This record gives sequence, C-alpha cells and structure tokens, in this order.
Amino acid sequence: MKMVDVGSKEKTERVAVARGMLRMSTESLVRLRERKLEKGDALEAAKLAGVMAVKRTPDLIPLCHPIGISGAEVQLELGTDGVEIAATVRTVERTGVEMEALTAVCAAALTLYDMLKSGDRGMHLTDVRLTHKSGGKSGTFEQA
Amino acid sequence: MKMVDVGSKEKTERVAVARGMLRMSTESLVRLRERKLEKGDALEAAKLAGVMAVKRTPDLIPLCHPIGISGAEVQLELGTDGVEIAATVRTVERTGVEMEALTAVCAAALTLYDMLKSGDRGMHLTDVRLTHKSGGKSGTFEQA
Amino acid sequence: MKMVDVGSKEKTERVAVARGMLRMSTESLVRLRERKLEKGDALEAAKLAGVMAVKRTPDLIPLCHPIGISGAEVQLELGTDGVEIAATVRTVERTGVEMEALTAVCAAALTLYDMLKSGDRGMHLTDVRLTHKSGGKSGTFEQA
Amino acid sequence: MKMVDVGSKEKTERVAVARGMLRMSTESLVRLRERKLEKGDALEAAKLAGVMAVKRTPDLIPLCHPIGISGAEVQLELGTDGVEIAATVRTVERTGVEMEALTAVCAAALTLYDMLKSGDRGMHLTDVRLTHKSGGKSGTFEQA
Amino acid sequence: MKMVDVGSKEKTERVAVARGMLRMSTESLVRLRERKLEKGDALEAAKLAGVMAVKRTPDLIPLCHPIGISGAEVQLELGTDGVEIAATVRTVERTGVEMEALTAVCAAALTLYDMLKSGDRGMHLTDVRLTHKSGGKSGTFEQA
Amino acid sequence: MKMVDVGSKEKTERVAVARGMLRMSTESLVRLRERKLEKGDALEAAKLAGVMAVKRTPDLIPLCHPIGISGAEVQLELGTDGVEIAATVRTVERTGVEMEALTAVCAAALTLYDMLKSGDRGMHLTDVRLTHKSGGKSGTFEQA
Repeated sequence: MKMVDVGSKEKTERVAVARGMLRMSTESLVRLRERKLEKGDALEAAKLAGVMAVKRTPDLIPLCHPIGISGAEVQLELGTDGVEIAATVRTVERTGVEMEALTAVCAAALTLYDMLKSGDRGMHLTDVRLTHKSGGKSGTFEQA
Repeated sequence: MKMVDVGSKEKTERVAVARGMLRMSTESLVRLRERKLEKGDALEAAKLAGVMAVKRTPDLIPLCHPIGISGAEVQLELGTDGVEIAATVRTVERTGVEMEALTAVCAAALTLYDMLKSGDRGMHLTDVRLTHKSGGKSGTFEQA
Repeated sequence: MKMVDVGSKEKTERVAVARGMLRMSTESLVRLRERKLEKGDALEAAKLAGVMAVKRTPDLIPLCHPIGISGAEVQLELGTDGVEIAATVRTVERTGVEMEALTAVCAAALTLYDMLKSGDRGMHLTDVRLTHKSGGKSGTFEQA
Repeated sequence: MKMVDVGSKEKTERVAVARGMLRMSTESLVRLRERKLEKGDALEAAKLAGVMAVKRTPDLIPLCHPIGISGAEVQLELGTDGVEIAATVRTVERTGVEMEALTAVCAAALTLYDMLKSGDRGMHLTDVRLTHKSGGKSGTFEQA
Repeated sequence: MKMVDVGSKEKTERVAVARGMLRMSTESLVRLRERKLEKGDALEAAKLAGVMAVKRTPDLIPLCHPIGISGAEVQLELGTDGVEIAATVRTVERTGVEMEALTAVCAAALTLYDMLKSGDRGMHLTDVRLTHKSGGKSGTFEQA
Repeated sequence: MKMVDVGSKEKTERVAVARGMLRMSTESLVRLRERKLEKGDALEAAKLAGVMAVKRTPDLIPLCHPIGISGAEVQLELGTDGVEIAATVRTVERTGVEMEALTAVCAAALTLYDMLKSGDRGMHLTDVRLTHKSGGKSGTFEQA
C-alpha cells in the first residue's frame, strides 16, 4: 500500500466536476420543495455537507493525498424523479481533486437521504461519476 | 436544523445492510482480479475504507447521531461489468445504522475508484441503496 | 492531566442549554436578513455548524468525555444589534453536555462571522454562558 | 453554499490575532493561580487546546479553506476578574487566518471552563474579536 | 476485513494499563526537567496528547470499535536514561480498552519526541506493551 | 505552548524514514504468515493504517505543523521474532516529516497488535526510531 509520490509534479490549477442522482418518490420531492422537514432545510444541509466532505476526503479515501483546496461548490437541481447533484472542486496543487468532487456528491446525497428517510427508505443513489477534469498532465477529461 | 431527540427510544439490537455497484471497464476488472495495482491491494483497501467510514459517518452526515457500533463488515464481489459492494453494520442503540451502512458502501466504492482511476476515469457508482434494516420501532425493511 | 473517571456515575437524562450573542453592524444584520451573501445562507450554515460541533467537542476540549448525544438543536434570533444564539443538547449518559452546548454556540457564531467578515471584521462574540443544566447529581443550574 | 475560489489570489505572509476574556469568580482565579485542579494544569491545557483548534478550524467552520499553518501561539493573562486570552496565527497562503485565531481563543476559553466548571458554572466568555490582521489584499485591520 | 460483532457481549467495567519508555540523551532529560523548551512544557503537552489520543484510537486503528470512555490518565516518570510512560484507560462497555491505552503511550512518547527533536533526533521508543487488563470475559492479564 | 513559526523557511523536498519492531510469539508470526485471521488480512490493514496515520499526525501531535504530504509508504518484513516496520514519508514543505514517519510506524504496529491480540497479549513494540532524514536546513541524519 502506498500513497504515490507526487513531489516532482508541477503545481497547476486543477478542476474536477462530479455528478450523481438521488432517485426518490414523488412524495419525497414534494417534501423537499416545501422545505418543511422535521430536521430542517435539507437542501441547504446537503450542499453544506458536500462542501465539508471535500475537506474530509483524505481521511476517508486511504491513499488520497491531503492537499489545499482553493474552492468548492455543490449544486442541487430537483427533477421529476429525483435530485441531480453536481460538485465542483478547484485546487492549485500537484494532484487532482476528482476524489474530492466524487466524495462531495456522495455526502450531499446521503445527507438528503438522512433527512428524508423517515418517509422513504427506498431512495437510490445512481450515476455518481466524474464529468469533467482539467489541469493536470493527463489532460482534460469529459464525460456526459 | 436539529438532531432529533432519541433519548426516549429504547436501546435495541439494530442491523442495516446497504449495497451498491461500481461499474467499470473489463480491463479494470482484470487489474483488480490480478491484484497488481501500483498503489497496492485495492480490494483489501476498499473493504477497510468502508469499515472505517462507518466510524466517520456522524462527521459527514450533519444530523446523524454519534453512536456506538458493535460490528461492521464490507464485502466485495467481482461481477462481469463491475464490483458489487455490500456493507453490514450492527449496533445496540436508540437509533439505526442505515446511514453508516450507506456511507460504508460509498467509501469502499470511491476507494476502488481512486486506486483504478489512472487507467479508467469513466467508472460509475450506481444503485447505492438500503437493502435491509431491522431492530427499531419502524420494523423491518427489505428491498432487493 | 486526566479525564476523571465517571464509570461509577449513573446514566441519566441530562440537558444543557448555552447562549451567546454575536454583535455586529446594522449593515451586517441587513445582509443576514436578506439572505443574499456570496457564500450562501449564513443562518442555515451556522445552525448546522453548531449541531456538528456538538459531535466534535471531545476532539476540541482535551479532557471532555466522548459520549453519545441523543439530540441537539441550535436557534438563532436576529435582534437590533446582533444575533442571539441558543444551543440545546441532550444525552442519556454518565456525564453532562455543558461543554457540547457551549461549543455549539461558539461554532455557530464563528460560522456567521466567517460568512459576514468580508464586510464587517469588527464583530464581537459576547456573553457565551451556560443558561440551564439539569439531570446530573449536582442538580439543576439556571442562569439568565 | 460555496467555499469561494481563492485560486487566483497570491500566496503572501498573513497574520491574525484574536482576543477574548473568560470572566470568572475570584475563587476560580485563585484555583487557576495555584494550579492544583483535579484534572491537571488548566493553563497549559488551555494553551495547547487553542493551538490544536487552529488545526481543526476547517472542520468546524463549514466554508473555511483548509490551509497550511506556519505558526500558532496562545497566551493567557490572569486579570482581576478573569483570564485574557490572545491567539496569534501565521500562514503563507492565499487566504487569511482570522477564523483560526478566533477558533483558538474559543477553544482555549472552553478548556479553562471545562477544568473549572465543577466549582463555577457561571463563567462568561466575552469580547471574542479580531484585533489584528495583515498580509492580504484587503490590507491591515486593527481593533482594540 | 471486519469489525467483529460484540453486540452480544455484556457491558462491564474494564480497565487497561499500557507502558513504554522513550530513551533519550542525558542532555534531553535535563532539558525536560528544567521545563524551558522553546515550544513549551513538554511533560504537560505529552500527558494531554496521550489522553486526547485515547479519543482518536478508533480513527487510527481500523477495526477498533468506537466506544465510550469513562476515564483516562497518562503519567510520566523521568528516569536515568529516559521517560517512563504509563497510560490507564477505563470504560463500561462491551469491549476492552487495550488499544486506547497503547495508543495513548505512543502519542505521549511522540509528543515528547517532537518537542525535544531539534536537539536529539536519536531517541528510541521501546517496550510499549500492555501491563494490565481486567474486566472482560477473557479475565485478567498482567505483564511486567 | 506554541507551534513555532516556519514561515521564513524554504520549501524543499524532504524525506523521513522511521523504523520499529513488533515482537511477538512464534504462533502469532505463523498466524500472520497464513493470513487467516478472523478480522482479515492484518498485513494489508497495518500498511494502510500506517499511511492513513501520516495524514492524522497533526491531530495527534499537538505542536506539529499541518502540511501537504507528497508520498507515503509502509513496509513490513516478517522476521524470526517479530515484524519489522518501516515507513517512508515525503513532502515539499517548510518543515520535515519525522513525526509523520514515526506515527506511521506506531499505527501500523498497533494495528497488527489489534488483529493478533485475542491470541497474544504479550507483544512488545520496540526500537521505534528515526533512521533517515534529509532535505531541511539541519542536513541529513542517519541512524541504524
């Protein structure tokens, strides 16, 4: 097991965007839209949990490098059968922030799950994936 | 925002099982099976990361109660188009461990992603869901 | 240095309430009320940060016991010269939750500070104190 | 909710100093001076807790950037009606360390509270504020 | 990998004591005794770091159960060729606290090392071992 | 207590290597070699725990600077009376990584202890020491 040495890589501006979808019942979507859950405003909580998870990523993913983060944002969009989650993370470091963006999507989705679960335990988190990555030696990656 | 009061609930044995699938290329599956990745044994690392994530769940999910955990296990099964992940978590507390099991699945999947990503950035994490829950007042929940 | 032994104390329901005030300029209060800060909804973020800080208290306060928390809530009230913060924490343990309630007040206040500081660096956090404590052997404590 | 992007800011030497006062009874001040508390040396513990809290700040303050810290110090001065706390934090980064200094003051004060509380639950933490900030684009800030 | 299920074990009072020795030069022992190190009082810092490490043990040792701790204490004794460290940890849980006591010894020793290392990089940590364990089903263990 | 200011030091490539030995019974060595422990593969778990502990070092060692890590690796070698542990850590920062390497050795050893302890509570961790350090102003240090 090793955290590979990135000491000889250059510090460059790097961006990663990840997306995912939390599928849920129509009733749960209505509860989210009305923002009247017992525990509080689930959309704000989920966005915040996503941003905070960016900072915990090296604690969760064993071989991930601890790096400085220059910016992070989580956006949620309510669709017809669930909530679309997008996380954008930026750094100026020797390694990228794909893992941070993917972790943010998962944490935001699980926070929504936690706040809605008393009424809907059947929710599914699907299609968590990297949709954009740029700024490192391996070039730009794009995926729908 | 509040962490709802569970002080009057009874301490009972509770179990939660969550599952998910990390879809990947055939080449990545071969690399996993051969266990010769640069960073180390990805399957062992993913299982361990899943168990450790159970203990970090209250730090990640804002309104989740911090509770004692009596047992946790993560299992991985290599299929034809990805890795099936299952996490089982047990407690004897006033609240359940659904969030812990779901978090373990995500952390195990993201650890696999991290160790395989240099060769395959297109992997998808799908169908993360609760498949079993028992032991609390709301009764037993089962989902395929 | 020692974390005093509480092993022979009884597990009882315990509650602690702490309060504090973040004094700020009229302009900052207006910005809070309008909820249009660059970083996001500061009131929701502060309440969430307060609840999450309850769970980090044993990491911050060196000799504080790590215990289960059964409920936590942070409330904010906008006054004429600042924001009044109140945190209520509940447990069923061998030791109280005063430190958790006080830590929640500080974390909520500092989160407001962080989100408003680009326009107002002169804010003061004052009168952080315990206002209620009940449930332990030392009896009930009340302070205005 | 977003952690604002600081990637285009320059790395410069930045310093922040925060102060606060923990008001307490004369009897508590005597106990502090004599350094004979059951739990150990409260003044040393408080200073250490303050320095350690600098490193936990991005975990506590949701939208605070995780950055490298080049130095941190907490000083305590026993006055006639309480303990004056001062924290100085230094960095060479793209963003300042005001939140780190303020968090250190709160953690040091709460640690004193924790070690004295069995004899004095009425202590107040007051006047937590930024007293100096320099090194960033917004210039130098001073407050008494 | 699994955290073994202890849900059916009984909650009993359990104690563990661990010991270790940090061997160092005579000059370092003199510096410790005089308590005039640049960074501060190393003996107080080491004791505190040991107690705090008890609370971080489940984060460090992957398959260790997260449990409540009812008491913890670290003691240091300056000998002729080093510092003897002893850590005592108590709980009322379904599993023991050997790992917590051993982790406390290591953290206390490494904190001393950190505060003395500018003058003595050759220090050795030796004989870290469990010296007492009682309260569980496996009975009492004693080792010199 | 202070975290000394390193802001004026230069960022250079720095490496530290630490070593230690976990002495154990022949029976425990056989159990390790056969990799059939109840909890899972102890050697992989120990290496991973060591690498992860590198990232937790500033949380455990109070006055240690939080810095970026560019690489980390833990190696285990089974000898005739125990397991030899070696940890190598690399950074490009203003301060060295001795504490990170020493912490990795301790965490790896304690993880082995945890996974073997049901059959052997008498294990000893010995000779934890820095064996190499280079890249800072104080020059290169070597110790057998």
